[in-house]
Amino acid sequence: MASALLEVSMTASAAVRANAQVQRLGDLRIGEQIGFRSMQMRGVKLAIPQPLRSTRVNNSVRISAVTAESSSPVFQDSLKRAVAKKAVELVKPGMIVGLGTGSTASMAIEELGKLIAAGKLKDVMGVGTSYQARVLARQFGVKTVDLNDVNVIDIAFDGADEVDGQMNLIKGGGAAHTMEKVVNTMAKKTVILVDQSKVVSELGLTFPVPVEVLPFAISPVLRSLVALGGEPEIRSALRKDGPVITDLGNMVVDVRFPGGIKDPADLERRINMIPGVVENGLFVGIVETVLVATKDAEETVIIDLADYVKNLQQAKNDAAEEKASSS
Amino acid sequence: MASALLEVSMTASAAVRANAQVQRLGDLRIGEQIGFRSMQMRGVKLAIPQPLRSTRVNNSVRISAVTAESSSPVFQDSLKRAVAKKAVELVKPGMIVGLGTGSTASMAIEELGKLIAAGKLKDVMGVGTSYQARVLARQFGVKTVDLNDVNVIDIAFDGADEVDGQMNLIKGGGAAHTMEKVVNTMAKKTVILVDQSKVVSELGLTFPVPVEVLPFAISPVLRSLVALGGEPEIRSALRKDGPVITDLGNMVVDVRFPGGIKDPADLERRINMIPGVVENGLFVGIVETVLVATKDAEETVIIDLADYVKNLQQAKNDAAEEKASSS
Repeated sequence: MASALLEVSMTASAAVRANAQVQRLGDLRIGEQIGFRSMQMRGVKLAIPQPLRSTRVNNSVRISAVTAESSSPVFQDSLKRAVAKKAVELVKPGMIVGLGTGSTASMAIEELGKLIAAGKLKDVMGVGTSYQARVLARQFGVKTVDLNDVNVIDIAFDGADEVDGQMNLIKGGGAAHTMEKVVNTMAKKTVILVDQSKVVSELGLTFPVPVEVLPFAISPVLRSLVALGGEPEIRSALRKDGPVITDLGNMVVDVRFPGGIKDPADLERRINMIPGVVENGLFVGIVETVLVATKDAEETVIIDLADYVKNLQQAKNDAAEEKASSS
Repeated sequence: MASALLEVSMTASAAVRANAQVQRLGDLRIGEQIGFRSMQMRGVKLAIPQPLRSTRVNNSVRISAVTAESSSPVFQDSLKRAVAKKAVELVKPGMIVGLGTGSTASMAIEELGKLIAAGKLKDVMGVGTSYQARVLARQFGVKTVDLNDVNVIDIAFDGADEVDGQMNLIKGGGAAHTMEKVVNTMAKKTVILVDQSKVVSELGLTFPVPVEVLPFAISPVLRSLVALGGEPEIRSALRKDGPVITDLGNMVVDVRFPGGIKDPADLERRINMIPGVVENGLFVGIVETVLVATKDAEETVIIDLADYVKNLQQAKNDAAEEKASSS
């Protein structure tokens, strides 16, 4: 065993290499590690990841033509605000409301609070999907109740990192996807709020799939994700050395699928069947409504995903016809 | 909201009733609770469960004819010891060994330690599936290493609560099934050690399926388990008020399927796809070998599961022929 233990002590740089290129892992034994623990023990910090929310603006896979203007934070915030305002109009007095996590969902909590403060919605209770959601609810005057203390959620609002035309989602950029999936699945009606930049023709071409993993099992789970064709990377924290730890005490692995995700339902199942995985960020068949905030000429328009996709297809056909008739 | 809050404060006895008969839950709203939190808040203790390991000795579904003698603890301990001794003969020097949890697996750890102490096995390292396994390993002189610090487990030993003829298992009586599934899945060869009382013709007729659940999601998960046709019961702790909490900080729900489990692979998937479920105790397609300790006349015999089932079938056929020829 002495030699094997020696190997362990030599793994600091090997671990960093292995983490960067997990797919190279083959029949290694004790030694070249991909687990975080071994790296932490050697005092090796994980690399700070590239910002996950940056979108490849010139990527042709985006359904919408994302321009420089449309990818600016101020522009996106105005769209998020618009869709949040529109969404909370669906809430009726007495409803129990699922409160999502993230920038758009936070605006929905704020807008819900405004309606309550204005006396337009009585007896509404919120169920938070995260610490963030509960704190915001308190701040904006939305009373909250524990998930385990209700048997029904009437409506849930949440954001998404990617949405395809069949209302399948990738979520988990905010590392709250496990609690979000519980709440959204339980809700009678889940309404997803996105700006147009989130709508894609195929999931996974830009955004990785976040997977919540039990820390003790991180190393075998990484290998299993590679076996599924993914390129996993442990999400590193900012303002904390080492990995992000979720509200539930687990780690998050972001898994890129470079060829995109052809069958989201199948991949969702396969990832969840890996022992050590708590939940993954693919949401298939959970959502009832997706509201898309778009900018039409100078006006911000909130439309249903189905209509948005239909309009885009129509515009594409018109452009093709025009080109054909002019040539 | 006042009325709904009032309802919550009235739920102490309702919670106990609902917990006992979760399947009655329909379109209840805030009020009749099945979640543990609401019960804890009212100071209601959960009922102490019936001992899960008690087997219905006269139940015809047991493949083996379990007699009063064969269900006695002393008899079972002698079988467990015999199979543990036999199993550790499979370990070779230099191997990394998965160490299971529970009474039979604990004996295997002890027997492994004896071989190491006798100088018959050098350079063996153990990977524990639980706090119990790691403590026993230390006690019996088996060096341990963290799961995340190895890339290979050569062989894993574990017990089971039920085994069917296709080497599918129910595990989790010891609430360690999540870590066990990670280790057993990772191992090149998983060897399950049972005495003959654990072999059944169909899983689930006697033993419930243990499901590890995130505490915050216990209430919606219970409802989803009912929707799958199960009869879930939160496992109550002894020497601690309230529920069992696993080594990973979660709760355990024991789910009875009164008609048995016709398709274990399908049920394993369905349970794991419920948001809030960490892992369930159905092990399908994970095991390479099952060793069964049986008593043949006065002699304890360790045989492979396939041979055990074949012998039983042969004995059944012989008995039928004998009956036919004598009539």
